[in-house]
Amino acid sequence: MPVLYHHTISAPSRFVRVCFSEVGFAAELVEEQPWEKRPDFLKINPAGTVPVCVTDNGHALCGPHIIAEWIDESFGVFKRDRRLLAEDPFQRAEIRRLVEWFLIKFEQDVVRPLVRERIIKLQLPTSQGGGSPDPKMLRAGRSNIRQHMKYLSWLAGSRAWLAGDRLSYADLAAASALSVMDYLGEIDWNEHPQAKDWYQRVKSRPSFRPLLADRVRNLPPVAHYADLDF
Amino acid sequence: MPVLYHHTISAPSRFVRVCFSEVGFAAELVEEQPWEKRPDFLKINPAGTVPVCVTDNGHALCGPHIIAEWIDESFGVFKRDRRLLAEDPFQRAEIRRLVEWFLIKFEQDVVRPLVRERIIKLQLPTSQGGGSPDPKMLRAGRSNIRQHMKYLSWLAGSRAWLAGDRLSYADLAAASALSVMDYLGEIDWNEHPQAKDWYQRVKSRPSFRPLLADRVRNLPPVAHYADLDF
Repeated sequence: MPVLYHHTISAPSRFVRVCFSEVGFAAELVEEQPWEKRPDFLKINPAGTVPVCVTDNGHALCGPHIIAEWIDESFGVFKRDRRLLAEDPFQRAEIRRLVEWFLIKFEQDVVRPLVRERIIKLQLPTSQGGGSPDPKMLRAGRSNIRQHMKYLSWLAGSRAWLAGDRLSYADLAAASALSVMDYLGEIDWNEHPQAKDWYQRVKSRPSFRPLLADRVRNLPPVAHYADLDF
Repeated sequence: MPVLYHHTISAPSRFVRVCFSEVGFAAELVEEQPWEKRPDFLKINPAGTVPVCVTDNGHALCGPHIIAEWIDESFGVFKRDRRLLAEDPFQRAEIRRLVEWFLIKFEQDVVRPLVRERIIKLQLPTSQGGGSPDPKMLRAGRSNIRQHMKYLSWLAGSRAWLAGDRLSYADLAAASALSVMDYLGEIDWNEHPQAKDWYQRVKSRPSFRPLLADRVRNLPPVAHYADLDF
């Protein structure tokens, strides 16, 4: 059975888990703590990042974009109107742009600093940078959230789904990234009703259910995290 | 005519210029200083990064991966043995992994800090962070180069081209990133003969010639930069 090395609170890992579920591809989940730089894991992915999918024939597919393209090439093309990438090359470009936006830019601006300060530092010994959150980093991450939420609201308000008329990788990437911030209670949904309506639709999909059951050690989610009517 | 917003010393921009040349796609080059955050440019690409290709029908293709996938979908598939992506899905995954490695990881670890310290800070007023290079940042970038050169040498020594038997996007991405560092004289080629042999082969391609003629204001390249027999 294929193996997916992932981490519960990694947005790109969550994205791949949802994609697998949407196309009906089963993989064994193995949790990896990428900050531990485990030598056997570095042999599989020298970049040391999750997610990585090792297929039955031993190929390592590293990173969310590469796994998503591979899923589309292997399964997506047969899905017709349930395909998560479009047929039109420019529509494909727009979907890929938004996947990058949420899994690279939103990740750098928001997810990485807040997850590091609020989750990873709790689990690391002081000698490796563990300790209490740095208020400056928290402020910077939170100020970035506001800008990103404005953009997300604009997308959600002007299109049926984020990249156009159909559910696509763009929605799954954005919702996966948002779900990590929502776990931590960092999203003020009342200020962004259009984004909330869109998130509610993605969150209600069966593919999203396992994410809502995820728990981080010593840090329960906010009360509304798994609630479909938040 | 399509327009390519690029910057001379941006590795992802160089990669796209070389790809265009390899497939025979012509675009008007417009130099953008992304750090100026020009409002009209942000309307085209809200992420504010180069390269961006605006096609004749007004579509904006943002970022090197998206442009490269679009080139492959539009022209590459007809190129047979000169295609820059492979036909096999796992081979495609390996090419994409290396493109990400050199245009995201090498970019973050090496190109961005060194270009910022050695080039951009020269052109910025002090009020916007201009000034002399920070020795700590230079040291960090240079120490990262050594690790990356070891990996590149391993790839170049164990395969005909970086991702396998054929020239691919992986070679063009890696060589574009290396060319920026080579402009600044940051690569010690004598220590890495296998990487040097590979770079010499890519550097000798007609598609690479325009890059070797590029010049940064007030900062000439090292003597061997444009030399094919360095």
